[in-house]
Amino acid sequence: MLGVAVVGTGRMGADHVRRIDEVISGARVAAVADIDADRAKHLADGIDGATAYTDPAAAMDDPAVDAVLIASPGPAHEAALLDAFARDLPVLCEKPLTPDAASALRVLEAEQKLGHRRVQVGFMRRYDAGYRTLKALLDQGTYGRPLMLHNKHRNADTPPGFTNAMMINDSVVHEIDVTRWLLDDEITAVRVLRPAPSGNAPDGLGDPQLILFETAGGQVVDTELFVNCGFGYQVSCEAVCESGSARIGDDHGVFVNSAGRWGGSITPGFVERFEDAYDRQVQRWVDATRRGEVEGPSCWDGYAAAAVCEAGVLAQATGERVAVELIERPALYC
Amino acid sequence: MLGVAVVGTGRMGADHVRRIDEVISGARVAAVADIDADRAKHLADGIDGATAYTDPAAAMDDPAVDAVLIASPGPAHEAALLDAFARDLPVLCEKPLTPDAASALRVLEAEQKLGHRRVQVGFMRRYDAGYRTLKALLDQGTYGRPLMLHNKHRNADTPPGFTNAMMINDSVVHEIDVTRWLLDDEITAVRVLRPAPSGNAPDGLGDPQLILFETAGGQVVDTELFVNCGFGYQVSCEAVCESGSARIGDDHGVFVNSAGRWGGSITPGFVERFEDAYDRQVQRWVDATRRGEVEGPSCWDGYAAAAVCEAGVLAQATGERVAVELIERPALYC
Amino acid sequence: MLGVAVVGTGRMGADHVRRIDEVISGARVAAVADIDADRAKHLADGIDGATAYTDPAAAMDDPAVDAVLIASPGPAHEAALLDAFARDLPVLCEKPLTPDAASALRVLEAEQKLGHRRVQVGFMRRYDAGYRTLKALLDQGTYGRPLMLHNKHRNADTPPGFTNAMMINDSVVHEIDVTRWLLDDEITAVRVLRPAPSGNAPDGLGDPQLILFETAGGQVVDTELFVNCGFGYQVSCEAVCESGSARIGDDHGVFVNSAGRWGGSITPGFVERFEDAYDRQVQRWVDATRRGEVEGPSCWDGYAAAAVCEAGVLAQATGERVAVELIERPALYC
Amino acid sequence: MLGVAVVGTGRMGADHVRRIDEVISGARVAAVADIDADRAKHLADGIDGATAYTDPAAAMDDPAVDAVLIASPGPAHEAALLDAFARDLPVLCEKPLTPDAASALRVLEAEQKLGHRRVQVGFMRRYDAGYRTLKALLDQGTYGRPLMLHNKHRNADTPPGFTNAMMINDSVVHEIDVTRWLLDDEITAVRVLRPAPSGNAPDGLGDPQLILFETAGGQVVDTELFVNCGFGYQVSCEAVCESGSARIGDDHGVFVNSAGRWGGSITPGFVERFEDAYDRQVQRWVDATRRGEVEGPSCWDGYAAAAVCEAGVLAQATGERVAVELIERPALYC
Repeated sequence: MLGVAVVGTGRMGADHVRRIDEVISGARVAAVADIDADRAKHLADGIDGATAYTDPAAAMDDPAVDAVLIASPGPAHEAALLDAFARDLPVLCEKPLTPDAASALRVLEAEQKLGHRRVQVGFMRRYDAGYRTLKALLDQGTYGRPLMLHNKHRNADTPPGFTNAMMINDSVVHEIDVTRWLLDDEITAVRVLRPAPSGNAPDGLGDPQLILFETAGGQVVDTELFVNCGFGYQVSCEAVCESGSARIGDDHGVFVNSAGRWGGSITPGFVERFEDAYDRQVQRWVDATRRGEVEGPSCWDGYAAAAVCEAGVLAQATGERVAVELIERPALYC
Repeated sequence: MLGVAVVGTGRMGADHVRRIDEVISGARVAAVADIDADRAKHLADGIDGATAYTDPAAAMDDPAVDAVLIASPGPAHEAALLDAFARDLPVLCEKPLTPDAASALRVLEAEQKLGHRRVQVGFMRRYDAGYRTLKALLDQGTYGRPLMLHNKHRNADTPPGFTNAMMINDSVVHEIDVTRWLLDDEITAVRVLRPAPSGNAPDGLGDPQLILFETAGGQVVDTELFVNCGFGYQVSCEAVCESGSARIGDDHGVFVNSAGRWGGSITPGFVERFEDAYDRQVQRWVDATRRGEVEGPSCWDGYAAAAVCEAGVLAQATGERVAVELIERPALYC
Repeated sequence: MLGVAVVGTGRMGADHVRRIDEVISGARVAAVADIDADRAKHLADGIDGATAYTDPAAAMDDPAVDAVLIASPGPAHEAALLDAFARDLPVLCEKPLTPDAASALRVLEAEQKLGHRRVQVGFMRRYDAGYRTLKALLDQGTYGRPLMLHNKHRNADTPPGFTNAMMINDSVVHEIDVTRWLLDDEITAVRVLRPAPSGNAPDGLGDPQLILFETAGGQVVDTELFVNCGFGYQVSCEAVCESGSARIGDDHGVFVNSAGRWGGSITPGFVERFEDAYDRQVQRWVDATRRGEVEGPSCWDGYAAAAVCEAGVLAQATGERVAVELIERPALYC
Repeated sequence: MLGVAVVGTGRMGADHVRRIDEVISGARVAAVADIDADRAKHLADGIDGATAYTDPAAAMDDPAVDAVLIASPGPAHEAALLDAFARDLPVLCEKPLTPDAASALRVLEAEQKLGHRRVQVGFMRRYDAGYRTLKALLDQGTYGRPLMLHNKHRNADTPPGFTNAMMINDSVVHEIDVTRWLLDDEITAVRVLRPAPSGNAPDGLGDPQLILFETAGGQVVDTELFVNCGFGYQVSCEAVCESGSARIGDDHGVFVNSAGRWGGSITPGFVERFEDAYDRQVQRWVDATRRGEVEGPSCWDGYAAAAVCEAGVLAQATGERVAVELIERPALYC
């Protein structure tokens, strides 16, 4: 039984605590840490054998702790990751790895000094059944090489304070990882086209947007991002290959005829759409950790995503094509 | 240019007049006949070179008439068909051929005395693109022999005065013809199962019903008939074969996402659903007639449908399996 | 942590052992029992803290055992259930409860003597996401009362020795439970129509068949059972209600265009199709048991299914409508 | 009966001759003109009352001619259009109006001198049932303003000699017209992104490509053009509006299960996909002409498409965003 310290007990952290407690096999919540002592205590009280802390490092020092799940706000990730490295503990770190490329590079270097991978980054779409099937299809090469990807990423609406930069950093970051993973290649340039915004977009938010990636291998990827579409949550991806195309994300559930209409319900949000992927992600991390292994998205993936996000935010602001610069890939991540 | 006499100018007749006038190539309306002299005259007045009659036989005697389209009420069909036979005119006769098996037999005998086929019966589903594709698939035998058919036949609602018998004679008659045509075999027995009726069914109407056919070749066919389903018009047919199944009728048009729902509109009625089939039916009849040929559903098909309808109405009333008795198939229809 | 004794270690039993060990949260395998001592030992050796037995009663006496999962062959269920009742242990019993209505009645009586429910029967479709959504739709009554169900149940092929009776007892038994559960009503009569069999059906097997149920409330249910359809595993259910219809089971996954074809893969078997339902079933049983509760399909459901199966096998053999007789529902199951 | 002169008897011209002769109601082929005298004669010989010519102007002078259908190669259109204007004859002119914006401008000016519209340009997608439904949806504004369009335009393969410029001028020209018509706005800028080409693309052809339009109203439109996709012909369009999205072009026909696959056939080519649209286009032109009216795409639409094509070819060659310059819209076309 793997004893896990959950660092950060906001929405995502509390959900991971529940997941490890009720859903995941082979792990238990040994410690929770939050700067809000009451919140940490309240959460720990509900779980047999869990201790509450305000300091992440203290939680990691709890003798019952074998591994760390970081779900605190992005700016707190770097310190928590370095604390975990100091104790050589395996880490599942919610995305983003860190909020920018420079800090991600520092984490990358620290893990290399450790000499072995310890971090799995929380890009949970890699654990979604649809994306996994698409990845397998592409890897088999049944339809030849992939030439283009068409992504759609739609949210019903956004919380107050959602900015243009968050459209890239919080939303498109998933398509950044999916693109790199599905195509097994780096993104080399980003463009952002901004249509006249929807009347339903909050003031100042350029919603929807069309984000365009080029890859090192010459593939072109477009993503419709529409975060105030009003009608629900939809994530789909079509890979156009040399002799066939394959699309996932048309998850249609119950088919209904009524009142002159055929159709069904659209998934309301990412929790419902990716619930299974979150479960599978944590279970795979627990299983690998118990075997003493690390798999899944690495610090390199976290760093590359941060670098593309930075280019994307610049492309969004300037209307220009912005090239993405990456350091050479370190041996640990090859 | 084929001069057509249209007999009967009610809903179907008037629509055929418009079709021949505006849509069909190679034919023109030469005469219209209706016992309602005003209605006939009003319709003829709108068309260059068309004369109005009250007597079908007089219309057929018009020297500009080369062929007859019968769209009068079913009980008037037998007399009009015999009139056409007396003048050896080609006929497109709206379904039913005649309202019962006995009168259909008399027509069958009269056409045999003529010594050649003159009648095409208006089973227009044979001209629907979906059914034609399904028929071609079955004839090719790509998926082995057909073993079962599942039909659905749904109407939004029924006009006042619609009876249980009309559910068989006016609605299921289409599935009777489709079954015989797709499977190229006769129906040998009928059962009708009657669920507790919908609260939306008019008093006394057992709606929906499940109609079961057996064929001479041992196939089983089920038809859901639901004529007050409320949500639109839907006609679908799935053929289950030895190594595959094929379904038509999922004609879905525009795919819409809105307000938490995906889907689209359901076709409101048979006119919209089968408009092209009606056009194609009449065009094919005009083309064949100009070549001096007869094709499409024959008097035998009209007679067989009438016989199965009679068995169906009895099965519906008694709850029993009712065998269908047919005379031996005359040489003219082999 | 709930200690479970798994009785029977064949295909289903071994899969449940793996499930409890690797997937299910809050339970562990404490004992396995099989008359094949080697098989039991081999399985137990792979799991920390699990002991092997040849006698189910001895396994239940193991002090680490809190609950029993019965996955032995159907004829062995009655004895194992009575053993569990004698120790007042909670039971998850794979379907069928017992192989016939008479033995199911004896189990029903024994549980009543105990004075409280202890048994959940393994009708796992009740835990499938699609069926649950359909059940919720029907219970809300959004589209009025359900009038008919159309079921399709297709297997790629059958193992050697599969008989006509097994088509009812092993396959249609799922539609029997689904019908009773979705419609919240008893089945009162069964008919079986047998088309000329597919050339791919083994000698003597009447495949496909059309099974017809009537319910106490007057609903009609049809089920196409085609166990050698060749093309994969498909389970679908359409509920036809007064003002709408809803269908589940079109689980289509990746949408592919290639070589002149659009489409995707058909699920190969029930394991892939219902894997999540099996997991959810066992997790729900573990959760309820830890709370000291019993939920899910009861002995009454097992008994009713057995009674309908008996009527179904008779209807299949005679070609007649066979009425289903049930005892009055005992208070414990109301 | 409208007497039509068909100018040009290549693939499209011969098909229009057949269409007017066999499908269209209210018109007949009175003359055919082709510089290949044998081809013109051969075609005219098969039709009652049709005369063959080598000179388009001579054909237009035939007293039986009331209207002209121009289906000669694009470079011959300007002369034929001016010939028709000189005789004040109504024209249906196959796309393109003329091969470039300068010549299109000359035609535009000539028609303005005539003082009334005489030309309908052959952008037949405006007559396709799917596009018409989508246009109606957008015009009703049910889902708010359209913000983006996503188009897919896929061909199985290209004939020898197909060039990058033809990808814009012959293929994307349809999306240019569809964009202008659906959004009721002009295209103001074009970009072309060129992924690494498919191994199935002929040498030198950058296939597939992603074409991006901006409109005067600030909408963004993307078009995947893939003319050697290998798997068939697919044309789809999704309009993303403020509170909903609507997609046409998923015309799926027969749904088949077989050999572990669900799906159906992909339309092989544009003839099968748009056959009805071609028929409807010519029928609507005949009907309007007989009423003395002109409707449908105008010379302005032909000119605007030519201007966008020129910008598109430049954008394709340079990789830059190219602005589209149009003259002010003349009063005749407002």
